[in-house]
Amino acid sequence: MSAEVICIGTELLLGDILNTNCQYLAQELANLGIPHYYQTVVGDNVSRIHQVLDTAISRSSILIFTGGLGPTPDDLTTETIASFFDTPLYEDPQIIQDISRKFASVGREMTPSNRKQALIPQGAITLPNPTGTAPGIIWQPKEGITIMTFPGVPSEMYRMWQDTAVSFLKSQGWGKSTIYSEMMRFRGIGESALAEKVVHLFDSDNPTVAPYAGKGEVRLRVAAKADSQAEAKALIEPVANEIKNIAGLDYFGSNEDTLTSVVGKLLQDANQTLSVAESCTGGGLGAMLTEIPGSSSYFLGGVIAYANRVKKNMLNVNSQDLVEQGAVSGAVAEQMALGVKNLLQTDWGIGITGIAGPDGETETKPVGLVYIGVANPENKTISQQYRFGSTRGRELVRCLSSYSALDLLRRILIKRK
Amino acid sequence: MSAEVICIGTELLLGDILNTNCQYLAQELANLGIPHYYQTVVGDNVSRIHQVLDTAISRSSILIFTGGLGPTPDDLTTETIASFFDTPLYEDPQIIQDISRKFASVGREMTPSNRKQALIPQGAITLPNPTGTAPGIIWQPKEGITIMTFPGVPSEMYRMWQDTAVSFLKSQGWGKSTIYSEMMRFRGIGESALAEKVVHLFDSDNPTVAPYAGKGEVRLRVAAKADSQAEAKALIEPVANEIKNIAGLDYFGSNEDTLTSVVGKLLQDANQTLSVAESCTGGGLGAMLTEIPGSSSYFLGGVIAYANRVKKNMLNVNSQDLVEQGAVSGAVAEQMALGVKNLLQTDWGIGITGIAGPDGETETKPVGLVYIGVANPENKTISQQYRFGSTRGRELVRCLSSYSALDLLRRILIKRK
Repeated sequence: MSAEVICIGTELLLGDILNTNCQYLAQELANLGIPHYYQTVVGDNVSRIHQVLDTAISRSSILIFTGGLGPTPDDLTTETIASFFDTPLYEDPQIIQDISRKFASVGREMTPSNRKQALIPQGAITLPNPTGTAPGIIWQPKEGITIMTFPGVPSEMYRMWQDTAVSFLKSQGWGKSTIYSEMMRFRGIGESALAEKVVHLFDSDNPTVAPYAGKGEVRLRVAAKADSQAEAKALIEPVANEIKNIAGLDYFGSNEDTLTSVVGKLLQDANQTLSVAESCTGGGLGAMLTEIPGSSSYFLGGVIAYANRVKKNMLNVNSQDLVEQGAVSGAVAEQMALGVKNLLQTDWGIGITGIAGPDGETETKPVGLVYIGVANPENKTISQQYRFGSTRGRELVRCLSSYSALDLLRRILIKRK
Repeated sequence: MSAEVICIGTELLLGDILNTNCQYLAQELANLGIPHYYQTVVGDNVSRIHQVLDTAISRSSILIFTGGLGPTPDDLTTETIASFFDTPLYEDPQIIQDISRKFASVGREMTPSNRKQALIPQGAITLPNPTGTAPGIIWQPKEGITIMTFPGVPSEMYRMWQDTAVSFLKSQGWGKSTIYSEMMRFRGIGESALAEKVVHLFDSDNPTVAPYAGKGEVRLRVAAKADSQAEAKALIEPVANEIKNIAGLDYFGSNEDTLTSVVGKLLQDANQTLSVAESCTGGGLGAMLTEIPGSSSYFLGGVIAYANRVKKNMLNVNSQDLVEQGAVSGAVAEQMALGVKNLLQTDWGIGITGIAGPDGETETKPVGLVYIGVANPENKTISQQYRFGSTRGRELVRCLSSYSALDLLRRILIKRK
C-alpha cells in the first residue's frame, strides 16, 4: 500500500505557481506513516491525465489529486478520472445546495458554470470543502484503488485534508503508527549557535532532533514515532525539557505559539494593555497583534506615524530630537512609545522607527537600522538598536522589526513576573 | 519534441524541502517555448527511477533530471540512468582535476567519495558546474532522446542551466521561439463571472487565454508564442485590449501591478495624500501601503482604532452612533475616514470597521461584515458594505477588507481623473 500525489494544472507546467501542495501532502503522508514514492504533475489535458492514471494505478493504491476542480472549462479533473474508469457522472443535489448557499451568503448568485462542480462519479462520496465552492471526492473505482481529489487552492486543500481525509485514511486502517512532533521556537539566537548547544541530541533516533531556520525565528523539530500520540509525547517531553533548560529565554514557545500569541498571553495574565506607534513597519505590528482573536482585551490600537509631522503632532516627539538625532534614533523610538501610551492611555507603549530600504540610508544610518522603544507602566522608557542588514530586503526588515519589538516586550514582561 | 522534468530525492517525498527547482525549470522551458507536459518526483531508488525512465522515454524527448548527483551512497542518479541504457561509466580525469582544484581552493582535500562524482556514462559529455563539485551530463543515449542532469542545489542548478544548458538546447534548434505572457488582474468580479464574459477567447490558440483565482483578485493569463518577445507582445496586445474593454473598471493592472501600487500611482499623479483609520484590519492596510518604497510621498500614516475608546477620542466618532448603529456600521466607517483625514491633514481618508471573527457576531451583524468609508478632499464621505462570509477565516476577511478599501479608493480616483 502506497500513495501517489498527482497535481493537475497547466499553470504548474508553465512555472506560474510554486507547487506547495505537493510538499504539504508529502509531510502529511510522512506523519501518517503512509509510504509515498511518486509525485506527478500534468496539465489540464484529458489524454495526458489518462496516461498518468494508467501508470499510477499500476504502482500505487492511494491516488491523491490536487487541482482542476474549478468551474471553468479547463477544470476537468473529476470528469477525466470518471471517464478513465468508464463511470458516468451525476449531479449531487446536496452539493448544488451547498454552493448556492455559499454564493447567497456573500450576496451573489450561483452561475451556471458552477453547476459543473456538483458533478461526481457514480459510487464516489463527496469530500466536503468548508471554505470554497469546489468539493472533492473519495472514490474506490476498483478493488485496491482509492482516489481522493482536492482543489488546488492551498488553504481549501489543507482544511479538507485535516477535516476529512486524515480520518478517512485512518478508518481504512492506514496511518496507524504516528509520528508526533513538537516544533520548538527560538528568537535571539542563530541557527548554528543553537545547533552547537544541542549538538549531542542530533544523534538520537527516537525522538529525532533537527534544526530548521524560519522567518524571524529558529526552530528545533523534536519528532517521535510511536503507536499513539500519548506515547510519542512521552518520548519527546524529557528531550524538550532539556532543550528549554539549555536555551533559557531564547526559547519562546512550541507548535502554534507565535511571538504575538505569547506576548498576548503575558499581557492578559498581567491584566495590562498595549498600544503601538509605528513608522517603518507602517501598521505591520498592529496587524500582527490583531491576528489573534480576542486581542482587543489587551491591544487598544496605535498610531501609524509614517510622516515626521505625525510623529510630532500626534506623538509629541521632540522637534529638536527629530532634527539632531534624526527620526531613526533611540530617543525618537522612546518618545514614540511614550507618546502613544499616553495618547491611548495604555499600560505599555511600543515605538518602532527604522530604515526599511531600499532608499533612505545616510552615511551613519544604513538600510536595516531600526530602533525599538518600550514605555512601561511607570512611564520609564528604554530603547534598543537593531541592524538587520541591507541585503535582506524591505519586507524582511519590516517583518523582523515587528518580531523584535514583540520579543523585546516578551523578555521585559517575563522578567517582571 | 517535448521536455519532461524528473526530480530525484527522497527528501522531496518526505516533504522536507519545497521543490522550487521544478518551478524554475518550468518557467525556463516556457520562456524557450519548449513544450513540457509532465513533471515527476521519485526517490533515490534504482528500480523506481528505472520505471520513471521507462515511462518518460515513451512520451518525452528531452529528460531533465535534478538531484542525486552528490557524493553520498544515496546519490545514484548518474549510475542508474547509465544502467537503464546498459551503458558503462568511466572516470573523467578532467572532472577529477576540477574537483581536486575546488577542494584545494578552500584548503581541503578531495575525499574518496567525491571520485564518484567524476563517473559519467560513455558517450555523454560533461555539463560543468562552476559553483559546486557535482557536474551534470548531457547525453543522447539513443535516437531522439536527450538527457540532462543537474544537482538538486538550486543555485548550482540555475547557474548550470544558464551557462550551458540554454545554449546547448538552442544549438539543437530547440527553444527558438519564445512564450511571453501578460498576467491581467481584476477585482470586483468573480472568476466564473469573468470567465463567462470572455469565454469566446478561451478557444484561441495563440495567444491563449486562461483564468486563475488569486488571493483577493482574479487573473487572466494571456500568453503568446512567437519568434521574439516583441512579436509575442504584438499578438497579446489586441486580445488584452479587448479584455480591458469588456472588464472596464474591474481590470486594475497587469504583471507586477498590485492594488497598492496602482492606488499609489493614482495618488502620486493627483499629487494627493492619504491616511487610514483601521479597526478590524489592525494596521494591515497601512502595512500594505508602506510595502511600496517611496510611499511616504502620498501615505502619511494613520490610527489603529481597535478599541471604541480610540475611535471616539482620537477620531471623533460620535458616541451615539457607536451605541445606536454599532461600531460596525457605515456611519462609523465614514466618521473614521473623516476623523483620520482631519487629524493627519491629508487629502483622502479611509476608515475600515468590521467583524473579522471568529467571535463578535450579533444577530444582525455576521462574521465577515465589513464597512469601508472614504472621505474625499471636499470632506464628503461615502461608505460601502461588504459581506465576506463567515467561512473564509479571520485572516482572509482582514486581507480582503484591505484590498476592498484600496479598490474602492482606486475606482473613486479614476472617476475623478
